[in-house]
Amino acid sequence: MTAAVLANNLWVLLCGLFVFVMTIAVGLLEVGELGERVIQSLVKTILITGLAVLVMAVIGFNTAFAPTVGGIIGNPFYGPGLILGAFSPGIADSWWSVSGAGLRTGTYFLFETAFAAVTLALVGVVALHKMKLSAFAIYSVVYFVVIWALPAAWIWNPSGWLAKLGMVDFAGGLVVHGAAGAAGLGIVWQIWREEKASGRKTSEVVPYRVNAGWLTIAILLLWVGWFGFNPGSVLAFNDEAIVVVETTFIAAAAAMVSTSMTAYVLTKELFNPLYVVNGILMGLIVITPLAGFVSPGSALVLGLLCGPIFCYAERFVGRAKWMSDPVGLFPGHLAGGIFGVLMIAFFAQNQFATGSGFPTLPNGVLFGGGGAAVKQLGIEAMGIVVAVVAVFLISNLTVRVLAALMKGITTSHAYTGDAETLTGASEKIG
Amino acid sequence: MTAAVLANNLWVLLCGLFVFVMTIAVGLLEVGELGERVIQSLVKTILITGLAVLVMAVIGFNTAFAPTVGGIIGNPFYGPGLILGAFSPGIADSWWSVSGAGLRTGTYFLFETAFAAVTLALVGVVALHKMKLSAFAIYSVVYFVVIWALPAAWIWNPSGWLAKLGMVDFAGGLVVHGAAGAAGLGIVWQIWREEKASGRKTSEVVPYRVNAGWLTIAILLLWVGWFGFNPGSVLAFNDEAIVVVETTFIAAAAAMVSTSMTAYVLTKELFNPLYVVNGILMGLIVITPLAGFVSPGSALVLGLLCGPIFCYAERFVGRAKWMSDPVGLFPGHLAGGIFGVLMIAFFAQNQFATGSGFPTLPNGVLFGGGGAAVKQLGIEAMGIVVAVVAVFLISNLTVRVLAALMKGITTSHAYTGDAETLTGASEKIG
Amino acid sequence: MTAAVLANNLWVLLCGLFVFVMTIAVGLLEVGELGERVIQSLVKTILITGLAVLVMAVIGFNTAFAPTVGGIIGNPFYGPGLILGAFSPGIADSWWSVSGAGLRTGTYFLFETAFAAVTLALVGVVALHKMKLSAFAIYSVVYFVVIWALPAAWIWNPSGWLAKLGMVDFAGGLVVHGAAGAAGLGIVWQIWREEKASGRKTSEVVPYRVNAGWLTIAILLLWVGWFGFNPGSVLAFNDEAIVVVETTFIAAAAAMVSTSMTAYVLTKELFNPLYVVNGILMGLIVITPLAGFVSPGSALVLGLLCGPIFCYAERFVGRAKWMSDPVGLFPGHLAGGIFGVLMIAFFAQNQFATGSGFPTLPNGVLFGGGGAAVKQLGIEAMGIVVAVVAVFLISNLTVRVLAALMKGITTSHAYTGDAETLTGASEKIG
Repeated sequence: MTAAVLANNLWVLLCGLFVFVMTIAVGLLEVGELGERVIQSLVKTILITGLAVLVMAVIGFNTAFAPTVGGIIGNPFYGPGLILGAFSPGIADSWWSVSGAGLRTGTYFLFETAFAAVTLALVGVVALHKMKLSAFAIYSVVYFVVIWALPAAWIWNPSGWLAKLGMVDFAGGLVVHGAAGAAGLGIVWQIWREEKASGRKTSEVVPYRVNAGWLTIAILLLWVGWFGFNPGSVLAFNDEAIVVVETTFIAAAAAMVSTSMTAYVLTKELFNPLYVVNGILMGLIVITPLAGFVSPGSALVLGLLCGPIFCYAERFVGRAKWMSDPVGLFPGHLAGGIFGVLMIAFFAQNQFATGSGFPTLPNGVLFGGGGAAVKQLGIEAMGIVVAVVAVFLISNLTVRVLAALMKGITTSHAYTGDAETLTGASEKIG
Repeated sequence: MTAAVLANNLWVLLCGLFVFVMTIAVGLLEVGELGERVIQSLVKTILITGLAVLVMAVIGFNTAFAPTVGGIIGNPFYGPGLILGAFSPGIADSWWSVSGAGLRTGTYFLFETAFAAVTLALVGVVALHKMKLSAFAIYSVVYFVVIWALPAAWIWNPSGWLAKLGMVDFAGGLVVHGAAGAAGLGIVWQIWREEKASGRKTSEVVPYRVNAGWLTIAILLLWVGWFGFNPGSVLAFNDEAIVVVETTFIAAAAAMVSTSMTAYVLTKELFNPLYVVNGILMGLIVITPLAGFVSPGSALVLGLLCGPIFCYAERFVGRAKWMSDPVGLFPGHLAGGIFGVLMIAFFAQNQFATGSGFPTLPNGVLFGGGGAAVKQLGIEAMGIVVAVVAVFLISNLTVRVLAALMKGITTSHAYTGDAETLTGASEKIG
Repeated sequence: MTAAVLANNLWVLLCGLFVFVMTIAVGLLEVGELGERVIQSLVKTILITGLAVLVMAVIGFNTAFAPTVGGIIGNPFYGPGLILGAFSPGIADSWWSVSGAGLRTGTYFLFETAFAAVTLALVGVVALHKMKLSAFAIYSVVYFVVIWALPAAWIWNPSGWLAKLGMVDFAGGLVVHGAAGAAGLGIVWQIWREEKASGRKTSEVVPYRVNAGWLTIAILLLWVGWFGFNPGSVLAFNDEAIVVVETTFIAAAAAMVSTSMTAYVLTKELFNPLYVVNGILMGLIVITPLAGFVSPGSALVLGLLCGPIFCYAERFVGRAKWMSDPVGLFPGHLAGGIFGVLMIAFFAQNQFATGSGFPTLPNGVLFGGGGAAVKQLGIEAMGIVVAVVAVFLISNLTVRVLAALMKGITTSHAYTGDAETLTGASEKIG
């Protein structure tokens, strides 16, 4: 390997490891916000981590990243991706779509698999203790093969139909955060149907029980994970990868301040841990789709916009009585992810995007992009609508089928709030 | 340094850091399985971490990795390893046995010291609260100088007698896991002798008290640590190192599913956290000795075999009334490590082993290895027997001597299960 | 980028990430020593992390590292550092003072910002629950712009007046640890003034409540963080960076043993978790200012000296009734940091210092440095006095101004020791 290929693989592999940690970190975030007793959160994210590696290795990596069939879905039988080459040594070759940087199949697989895993972990925050763990595990398999794979195949796979139209999404404002929100909506709708059928007038509320220790570990791991998430998405170790470290971190820091201050104005309470932490997360989410296209100054501005967006989105979502989203999938990931994608058309600068591998991305409206920027805005908006609708429908269809097969996806027992026993975390069957 | 030497040192140094974390992670695993009150677990693994660095730097690195005296033990007075060159700048040179990859003494020292430390942490899971911390600390010194060093000097040191016979053990199925089990057997036997002398009919059982938070952190850190453990054991950053990331992760994921499903069949309980976590660990253990010799497809098969092996080994070990092994040293590390070493002769593929630095390793039986594979099986089996017996005997001899000097190695007080005070975790003497 | 420039940036960026983790790790250390209930510790260190990134990006990086005005303070309007180049792509260029190693502005910014953040976290351990979080947040801004920046501009910025006199401080015995102690003194003095004014005869004591889990996570993260802290301070990935890993780890290990044994002699209690952990920290602190100048043998000797120094400094500080320092800022960081800086003149070896970028540093007294070493001792001592006094005065002035504006910096409520509610951790205002 040349020096550049060595550095690229080393970088993306390590970034993949950092992202790999984020799945379980999301479980710790749930525990940090909802209380130590939610053992199920942790088992769930450990299972997601393992299932992601297994299912992606067997087939999901292909359905997302193999050369696509008509721009729609990757060829599941593409040799180098099928069980990563199975018993052949092909895993050591460069993967077709990232061969420019010399990324090996193993490198790219770890990186993208970690993304798939953490996306499902985000979806899973609305499963709470309400959805059967067995149903969620089966959902996971469908998720990695189809639901996660479709937006990835369309936008990140260079042979995908949206990619060919010129849609960009740097590290997953839509492919990760927006799509997680859409898939989660598909689940909460089914949960609500079952709750309603059991006689409830409003969805069961899962209360906050902040556990500061786990909340702190969670935000620490997620922030470190984002060091892999965004900078690694350059898919090479070059000057732009280093820039992305800073745009990512600056947006997070500015959003922490912005969200803390907005919450203070709204509630008169200063430095509530939930707003401090959610502010950091909101900054990280919003910068994700354009971290590799913008300047540090723009990252600062984008971060400052996060406070009002998050706080008002949270209030808006909080009004819905038919669902429970205490960890903030919809105001955070769905709203923040989509907002970030749209901002590409305003804040992008071609000088930065070139280093990320998108030399044809036009400058945004704020940097003289003019008509090209407006056209880009239209492409991004169209992609958002199509992906969100598709993911929502397939996710909802999946849980409906599961509900039919398993006599509902929700657990029969109400959550008592008492300490879960070990047995309570797992499922007694038969 | 050339680009390759830079990458090799950077890779192995970072992998060493990840492995370094695993020692304390084993302490967290104990706490996650046996309850938060076992403060002693944590003090123990912190002490192991520090003692490993100190003792290995002074002498243990030499007894394991300096040019051997007759293939048996490294020369303790080898200059570049004695306090890492003491006051000379020799530490910045390449270590003799890894000079092909240009690994500096400092790089190789950190990597191997982290291995020594985590091996002792595994041994230590059977110390529980039963063995005096002071006795364990003294045992540690002997351990790093002799007990850990011997199998390493025989198998990993290229001048060792087993290495010269052709025995291979990629990242320590025997040198780490099997030997940890053997050393642990030496300890539990002495504990049982003292328990029996005090009138007990069966060994005191230490019950499970799952603490899901610490269990989760532990499995997360151990999985991340194994990213260093196996891929770093290529001792270079090359294509094969990337392959090893995937064989390691795929085996872990497959074993998680396999073990969860086997436990479900046996107990009708789905997703018990202990089986989910132990499944991941079992996959990581079994793949360790051959992660650098096999394909992703073989890693998948090996992972799927883990569930039945672990569950039946656990039942078998659980029948023994004369010892307590709640964290699974014997069914996990001893059985899994030895099984993995034997599988080298079945699953190895020369194409992969060459990248790990073993160009003469024959294909396994399943890949047309024929007579050469059978011969390899014999060598591996012989090495296992010799190393396990030797380590068991020296470990047991060591604790017997300590018992004679310290009026027993076991603590006088029974564990009450009550919250330990700070004082309770340390030892009042005099 | 050439192979060396790739490796240098990759190394320093990753080391920066490891140091970045340390700020929150200090919060976990507080919780590990003082009990889980101190939620405020965690919110504080999360806030510090975010504020460091934001304030340093806007101006603090410049006041510390831009070309100085008369050797005193960096030019706050230096283009490449002002919001890291704001909307220009200059962030991708090498920073002026580290262009020899080709470190990009983004790389160097992350690394140094992480240092600024963790230094303030150390200062913050004396804030305890006594200082208003709002006052601490405002103090943070002043801290990053001026208080942290001055010693950095004088000693680490090559255009600083102390640097030009020949003062060296490898990774921050003075710039980080000593200065943190001096700034903390400025705060505790003001706290005491307010406590006295409210009628107290002695400062409120904050008792130990060891939480072994968090204490363990904290020391683990801090040790891993120091892997970035010292070895990254070579500001390049070369042979010496690898040496620094070992001098750092050996000093920590030796100090763990030395401090545990000293505490045993003084208290007859063996392996008290607090002394085990503080021993590791003391070793890391003492080696910090000279890790890149000394041999592994000298690191071992320095580590062994740590036990007596820490234990006696702790007893000395413990006698002061007018302040509370349970986490050991003064006996650990202030005393240890200054001791380490002075040891440069005794233990430095030019062969090692050259690799760290200080080819003109003379050998220490113990290595034949003679008159040059004595002169170096004088320079270091002078720098210590000037920096400690300056930082103390500015820190104290800052909190006095804040006290005048905010009716005191201390919270009105005494700490009850009861579980803090979420609300208790934040501040109700208006």
